Order: sequence, then C-alpha cells, then structure tokens
Amino acid sequence: MKKAVCLLSGGMDSAVSAAIAKKQGYGIYALSVDYGQRHKKELSCARKIAKFLGAKEHKKIKIDLRQIGCSALTADIPVPVGKDAAGIKASKKIPPTYVPARNTIFLSYALAYAEAVGAEAIYIGANCVDYSGYPDCRPEYFKRFQDMADYATKKTVEGKRILIKTPIIGLDKAGIVKKGLELNVPFEHTWSCYQGGTKACGECESCVLRLNGFKEAGVMDPILYA
Amino acid sequence: MKKAVCLLSGGMDSAVSAAIAKKQGYGIYALSVDYGQRHKKELSCARKIAKFLGAKEHKKIKIDLRQIGCSALTADIPVPVGKDAAGIKASKKIPPTYVPARNTIFLSYALAYAEAVGAEAIYIGANCVDYSGYPDCRPEYFKRFQDMADYATKKTVEGKRILIKTPIIGLDKAGIVKKGLELNVPFEHTWSCYQGGTKACGECESCVLRLNGFKEAGVMDPILYA
Repeated sequence: MKKAVCLLSGGMDSAVSAAIAKKQGYGIYALSVDYGQRHKKELSCARKIAKFLGAKEHKKIKIDLRQIGCSALTADIPVPVGKDAAGIKASKKIPPTYVPARNTIFLSYALAYAEAVGAEAIYIGANCVDYSGYPDCRPEYFKRFQDMADYATKKTVEGKRILIKTPIIGLDKAGIVKKGLELNVPFEHTWSCYQGGTKACGECESCVLRLNGFKEAGVMDPILYA
Repeated sequence: MKKAVCLLSGGMDSAVSAAIAKKQGYGIYALSVDYGQRHKKELSCARKIAKFLGAKEHKKIKIDLRQIGCSALTADIPVPVGKDAAGIKASKKIPPTYVPARNTIFLSYALAYAEAVGAEAIYIGANCVDYSGYPDCRPEYFKRFQDMADYATKKTVEGKRILIKTPIIGLDKAGIVKKGLELNVPFEHTWSCYQGGTKACGECESCVLRLNGFKEAGVMDPILYA
C-alpha cells in the first residue's frame, strides 16, 4: 500500500486534507507537531482524527518555537479578536498569529519522516482562499518547497520523488466543510480556535473563518463556542 | 550592524563558515541544534566557537531526530569505520551517516530565527568537495532552498531577502583548514568525529576527511586522537 505522511494539526483543514489522502488510497502516517502553541487541545484532536483515519502510525514531535517567538501563538503577543482581527484582515497585512517559517519547519520534518518510512507523498491542509495572508500558505510557496524537496533527500537523489500535496488549497472554508462531510470527517474532533479554553472563543480570526465556512455550507458546526 | 544567523555544529566547517560571516561584517546570531546525535561534545565546542566569534546570541534548539531515526547518527545503526567507510566512499553511495532531511530542518529553524531577529543572511558550513555524498550538501540543493526561502516568510513577502550563504562550499578540507588558520579559528575547540568519546576515533569518515585536510594543509590537527 502506498504511504503518505499527513500533517495533522487537530484543525479541520488538516483533517479534511488527510481524509482526502485516505480516499486516494494512501496508508496514513500522521505527523503532529507540539511546537509550544498556546494550548494542547488541538493535539488531542489530532489523536482522534488519526484514529478515525486508521493511521498506521501517529508521530508526535515536540519542538519549542517559543524559543524563537515573534508570534501571537508562541510569544506574549495578544491574539487579535473581534474588530481588531477584522481590521487586520481588511488591511491585508500579515496578522501577528503568523509564526516565522512554521510551515517550512513542519514540512521539513514531514520530509524526513516520509523518507524514513518510504512514503511517496506529504499532505498538508493549507488553503489560500479563506486564509490569513500567511506567506507559507500560498501555492507559489509550496511549488518552491517541492522543487527544493526534489534535491534534498537520498530518496529523491535515487529518482523517487516525495510529492507535496495540498488538496484543499483552492477551496474556501465552506468548500472544505462540504468536502469533509462527504468524507465523514468527525468535525466534532477538530479545533480551530487560537485561544486556549474548553470552548472555542468564536472571535479570533480562525474561529470567524470556521464559523463562516459552516454557515455558508448550511450546516451546524458541532463544536462548542463560548 | 547587519546580522547573520550562523549554524554552528561544533565542527570545523561551520566554525570557519561563521568566522567568514564575522569577517564580512555581520553580527553573529549562532544557532546550534541538539538533535539527539550520538554525543554532546560537539555542542560544547559550538559554545566555545560562539564565544570566540563574539556572538550576540547563541540559540540552542533541542529536537529529537531519533524519533525519526533511519541514520547511523540517530538510530542503532553502526557508524562505518576504516575499510567499511572507505568502501562506501569508493562506491559513491550515500553513507548511513546521512540523516534524513537534516539540513532542510536546520535551515528551516535558521530561517525562522533569522526572521525573528531581523537577520539578512544565514551561513551554513556545507561543502561539496571533500564531502560524504549527502544530497543536502550540494549547491543545487542550496539554490532551491534559497528559492523556497524567498517565498516562505513575512520578511521576504515584504521584499527583504534572507540570503542562504555557503562560503566554503567550493573548498576542499585543506582549503577549509587554511581559511580557518587565516581567520584564527580555534580548531582545538572543534569536533568532527562521528563517534562519542573524549578523543576522536581517527577512523570514521569524518575523522579521515579532517585528518587528510590538516595533512594536506601542512599543519597539525590540534585535537587528540585515540
């Protein structure tokens, strides 16, 4: 059975992306990164999604991006909510929740893991439609990562590519919700809120995007909001 | 003062590379990665080299590549020595000391760190002349990493490039020794041996390359060998 490494953050995007990998016939090697983000809720969600996918393995890697900081998710910088979040979005500025080089670091680990287990693809749930302006979520970025990956490993030198797959990159949040429903993704076990807490805040940019996505798709978001 | 992130492994190549950065007028932000390698000696060497360079900061990041394994440096796979090492070299095969995606992971952290401190360059002491056939030590690999980095960060989106510098990539080991002597690099505080121990083994590929380099340069290697 062909193998794919699937980055699973615990969020809905990576869950849908990984469900697509499974649908496309890959055995799933899930990879979750505990990078010192504000809360651990998303990691327990990742565990549940990996179980749902029947993952062959679920690798959890602990790194500490708080040592580098410089983001609202990894340093003492407030997460914008409500009007502040909307204002940043309207300004088209990259918001403070951007974490320096995060996707590059995650994909690098995924590349190492893919090479170690002999996987031929890496799935990442990035999307660039309803997104937050992060530079490392754009198709042009992933194209360059692929080019680099084609030169980076022993496997690729031997002529076997490791493909970087971004199956939901062109979908908006409503499209991601619909695709997830089609694949029976248990959205109740996904978490998108940037804040800690037992209920999602409903006000940070990530919550707002998610809620709009469910609304547009015409279904209820099964998670609890404060 | 312009800033450079310098990857410092504790080995002679990264020490010389960082000394070149200093000579070129950069303030040094040293970055060492404890990745679960066989011994910690090289990390204490990195500390001494950072001190010699007058580094503004020396960031030590701990990650665990043993979780991924698949290398003689991060798993229970023997490091080839003597005839075995020579045989692998002659065969032009990539040796078992290759660590999957190691330079990609290291450079990704360096990219995050460079963005966080506002550095405009990253120095890495890779060289492709007397090297071990690692795919991620080749100029064509670094070129692609640069292309990717130009799309990866907030800083690059704003038009400020972070340059990936490989100043010793075209030097052989003897050339690296000579360049280091010219810049007063304290080679006694560098460590190249793949094996643990208080003295270098003198037999692994890394020791053999180093010893040949000093021999060809016509100077004594100041470290102790078993």
